[in-house]
Amino acid sequence: MQYHTHDIQIYYEDTDLSGLVYHANYLKFFERAREHLLGAGELVRLYHDIGVGFVVYKAELTFREGARLGNLLEVRTRVVVDGRYRAIFHQSLWRPGRETPMVDSAIQLVCVDQTQNLVPIPEHLISRLAEFAPPPPPSAT
Amino acid sequence: MQYHTHDIQIYYEDTDLSGLVYHANYLKFFERAREHLLGAGELVRLYHDIGVGFVVYKAELTFREGARLGNLLEVRTRVVVDGRYRAIFHQSLWRPGRETPMVDSAIQLVCVDQTQNLVPIPEHLISRLAEFAPPPPPSAT
Amino acid sequence: MQYHTHDIQIYYEDTDLSGLVYHANYLKFFERAREHLLGAGELVRLYHDIGVGFVVYKAELTFREGARLGNLLEVRTRVVVDGRYRAIFHQSLWRPGRETPMVDSAIQLVCVDQTQNLVPIPEHLISRLAEFAPPPPPSAT
Amino acid sequence: MQYHTHDIQIYYEDTDLSGLVYHANYLKFFERAREHLLGAGELVRLYHDIGVGFVVYKAELTFREGARLGNLLEVRTRVVVDGRYRAIFHQSLWRPGRETPMVDSAIQLVCVDQTQNLVPIPEHLISRLAEFAPPPPPSAT
Repeated sequence: MQYHTHDIQIYYEDTDLSGLVYHANYLKFFERAREHLLGAGELVRLYHDIGVGFVVYKAELTFREGARLGNLLEVRTRVVVDGRYRAIFHQSLWRPGRETPMVDSAIQLVCVDQTQNLVPIPEHLISRLAEFAPPPPPSAT
Repeated sequence: MQYHTHDIQIYYEDTDLSGLVYHANYLKFFERAREHLLGAGELVRLYHDIGVGFVVYKAELTFREGARLGNLLEVRTRVVVDGRYRAIFHQSLWRPGRETPMVDSAIQLVCVDQTQNLVPIPEHLISRLAEFAPPPPPSAT
Repeated sequence: MQYHTHDIQIYYEDTDLSGLVYHANYLKFFERAREHLLGAGELVRLYHDIGVGFVVYKAELTFREGARLGNLLEVRTRVVVDGRYRAIFHQSLWRPGRETPMVDSAIQLVCVDQTQNLVPIPEHLISRLAEFAPPPPPSAT
Repeated sequence: MQYHTHDIQIYYEDTDLSGLVYHANYLKFFERAREHLLGAGELVRLYHDIGVGFVVYKAELTFREGARLGNLLEVRTRVVVDGRYRAIFHQSLWRPGRETPMVDSAIQLVCVDQTQNLVPIPEHLISRLAEFAPPPPPSAT
């Protein structure tokens, strides 16, 4: 039931000549939300102390409606942890009060060390991510 | 057999603190390649003369290897035109001489008018896109 | 005595391989602060209703200290309105509690119409900008 | 008489809702030109071998005319080396065949080590930069 929310305001820098947000920038908004969910301080410590960082391995995005200058929007994030190595962030961008998201995505992250080799996601972060797990499916009965 | 190629050089602006290219920027490289394939002049005419533009509807990306400052890379593009309304760009980023791409993607574009309503892709562009169609599957015999 | 403040958090997207914020991005932070000072809704109305927009004519920046991932910083803005045509935004980026700014700037804006011709800054915006005028120099006596 | 030139094509990613290039992006174009002038390989070696990098200390920009999607433009660069510590890049953006630049700038760079302390510009780069020195003033006689 629980999802993480992060507010986004659309600035000039985000738009292109169509008047709408340039498509690649939605990936930035989703990453900002992930940095808030995990904590920027935590990410910095992880990188400096043990040389581990998150990297995006796969991303799937559907762009349904474009955002415009001045829009105040909300990124909603749920996380599925898949084993020790992989977390899938289901992130979507919402206009407050609407029934459908403007953009939705599934963004798969893994952890790598300084030589870009795969390492397990640190335990304490798995717990943090688990707070935003999607609800279990309704029981059959 | 035929695919479109576009050269990319990695600059400071493309990197982030990991030393590798920031993930959202690969979408920019793929769009630059599409603008070359279609012709920037053609895109400008389309937009000013009949108010039609291409927009990204879906994007799927797999990030296999990160690019670094100074890398000279190549975007390769093939296009599957799917009816009158949809073109799927299969775009990948290559380090010259390698057997596998650093990043690959399927990016689905549609055309919209000034009110963001779906319109058919103009005929003359469908012909242009068809030049970069993937090869037919080998015949069964 | 009065200046406008706007908070900035540094994200991955803002950094480059040096580990510090890419220099051009500070201009984005200063523009976000200007959009908050003037009001994004006001800027949108101005553009849609009378076809007038602000453009940067000159910018002078001094970069004293680089910002890093996760830094929580503050943009401080004062505005000198110079006649009907020109507003000079004195904007600086601060680490809370420090005596000197990390970056400071003087950014000169003018208003233009749809054909990029100079027009006076609308009266009601001049009043808004005047709220953030620098303090008068101390009197000589 | 000699200046360095670097070609720029304007893409969707460079524009904002005004239809013109977003002001901060001109700083990116100027930096790309500097990377070509110095050589990206040289910059990478400098950073990896002796931990030295160039950073922008000051930038002054005047924006005279906005660039648009599809424009093919030229960055022209001259360099004034000022002692062992400072190089001033006079960089401007030109539309081919015009008498005045669209944007011009003076961008002051210094070298820093890994702890962000000032170090002299390496000798062999000073020679490289000197190739693009402005012409001497005409002699008085």
